[in-house]
Formats: sequence, structure tokens, C-alpha cells
Amino acid sequence: MGRKIILNLAISLDGYIADEDGRYDWIEGDGNNQLNTEKPFNFTEFLDGVDTVVMGKKAYDDCDIEEYKTKHVIVATSQGLESHHNVEFVHDDICSYIGRLRQKEGKDIWLFGGSGLTDCFIKADIVDEYIIGIIPIILGKGRPLFFGSNPTIKLHLDEYIVENGITILRYSKRF
Amino acid sequence: MGRKIILNLAISLDGYIADEDGRYDWIEGDGNNQLNTEKPFNFTEFLDGVDTVVMGKKAYDDCDIEEYKTKHVIVATSQGLESHHNVEFVHDDICSYIGRLRQKEGKDIWLFGGSGLTDCFIKADIVDEYIIGIIPIILGKGRPLFFGSNPTIKLHLDEYIVENGITILRYSKRF
Repeated sequence: MGRKIILNLAISLDGYIADEDGRYDWIEGDGNNQLNTEKPFNFTEFLDGVDTVVMGKKAYDDCDIEEYKTKHVIVATSQGLESHHNVEFVHDDICSYIGRLRQKEGKDIWLFGGSGLTDCFIKADIVDEYIIGIIPIILGKGRPLFFGSNPTIKLHLDEYIVENGITILRYSKRF
Repeated sequence: MGRKIILNLAISLDGYIADEDGRYDWIEGDGNNQLNTEKPFNFTEFLDGVDTVVMGKKAYDDCDIEEYKTKHVIVATSQGLESHHNVEFVHDDICSYIGRLRQKEGKDIWLFGGSGLTDCFIKADIVDEYIIGIIPIILGKGRPLFFGSNPTIKLHLDEYIVENGITILRYSKRF
């Protein structure tokens, strides 16, 4: 397999990626580094491995784009926005679009979120790798990562990292 | 603190404790023991630490009760069933009942499931410890552990165990 589509995001123990107002300020560790695995999560290495970041319009507006300056940023939106520099707005079926993009040469594709966007990729079962950080909190309510009515996808745990009470689980599809 | 109420069960990565038909046959590892932590989950030790197991009627009917013979088994049901031997049927508000039981002397109380039962305990925020096994699968649909509309509960990761691709996370409440 060449290029991978990688979903990489953090969820609460009860499966939310943002609270009801779309806020992320609950995404933090528990202050305990005693359980940390030897190897921390290497975000720089992860970022080096991708050349494309896919996100919804809301996530694009909310997130600091600085880190992705050198990446091809693809934003799904129903608004008629014009692409500029490294940012491309896609108005059609984003899932099919990225599915076709994957066939071309390139580095991995980071499926950034939010939850509306990731849902169609999970439903189409075209996510190659799931990197899920589990934040030590029951958020109670919010925007879920998994909307339900998904196909059953058996996974293989490739790696785990514990850092400050956050458990990062890296899965690929089980064959 | 004396006696603890411990929720101990397995969920899929997308947060289900059983499939739509109430089946558990998807609860299995990924066949890879390379990532196993040195210490496996010691179920015997866990069982030794509890003297009471709380479950819903459906869970009671479905599960093999053999392991809990020596335990006080409390079953929540709206049916007018008569208690016998070590099995007590509770028809009133199970959550308040167990809350009162916790005040008495004894070992820990295992909140076994199913999801209808555990919900009221989470909502009342009287679970002291969450032991959650994350099965390497996106189940797609089923019976969720977390129903939503819960209070926000900050957690502290006390321990993690990896076994055959299953990640067992043990949390207490963060103070």
C-alpha cells in the first residue's frame, strides 16, 4: 500500500471530539507523568509523514493553521469559496475526492476532523490508520467521533503511547 | 474511602458494550501479543476484591453466573422476582439502593452492566473506578456504554494494561 488516510484526533473516554459549543479546552492530561511510556508521541515525525490535511470548514476556522503552512490543506465546505495558496476548498463529495487523491503519488493524508467530515470516511471504510488519543475525562455531552450506523471494522493495535494520563492508540485495519 | 463502586467492562473503540442483538462474540483480541505489557490483567485478583456484583436482568440471564457463586449478586429488574440464595432482585431505584449499600462494611462493588443499568450510576457520578477494556474493533452500531447527557467527570489514569491488542484502562476520579 502506498499513501494512507490517517485519522488522528483526541476523544474523551465517552467518545466526543469537542464539547457542545465546539470547544477543546478539556483536552488535557491528568497531570501524572508516572505512567508515561518511554516513547512519547512524535508529532513532528507524524507531520513529516503527511503532505495533505483534510478538514471541515468549522475546524479550518477554529484551528491555528500555522502548523500546516507547508501542507496541502483541503477544506470541505458547501460555501462557494475560492481556493488560495496551499488551501483548497472542495464543494463536492469530499470522501470520493480524497479517495481519488489517494490513488496519486504523495505522502500520507491526515484526516483532521471535525466529526461531520470524518463520518463519511469511516462509513466508506477508507481510513487506513486510526490514531486516537483518549483524554482522561467523561465529557458528558458533545460532538461524537462515531455517529453510529457504521460498518464493522476489525482493527489491529500497532502501537500505544501513554503521556500525562492520555492514552494514544494507533490502529490499522485487521486483515 | 472504604468500599468502591467499580465499573469494569469492555467496549469497542466506538463505545459499544454489545451489538444490536446483545451479543458479545466480537469481544476478542487482534491475535498479536507483541505489544503486551509485562503485567496482564489479573481477573482473579479483581474478583477477590469484590463481594457484590450488580447487573441488569438481561445481563443476568445472558451471563454464566458460575464465577459469581460466592458473591452477592444484585439484579435490577422491574419484574416481581423473589430473591434466592446469593441472588437478590431489586425492584426499586437500583442506583440509590447501591449508594446506600456502599455506606455499609464490605469489599468493593462491581458494576457489571448492561448499559441501561450503568447509565444511572454514571449520571449520579457514584462510580469510583472505571476499568474499561478497549477492544480493537469499530463495531458500527450496538448498545452504547455512554448514553450522553452525563455530567463532566475528570479522570485520573491509574494503570494501563495491553493484552492481545486489547487496551485496559483503569481510571479513578480526578481530585
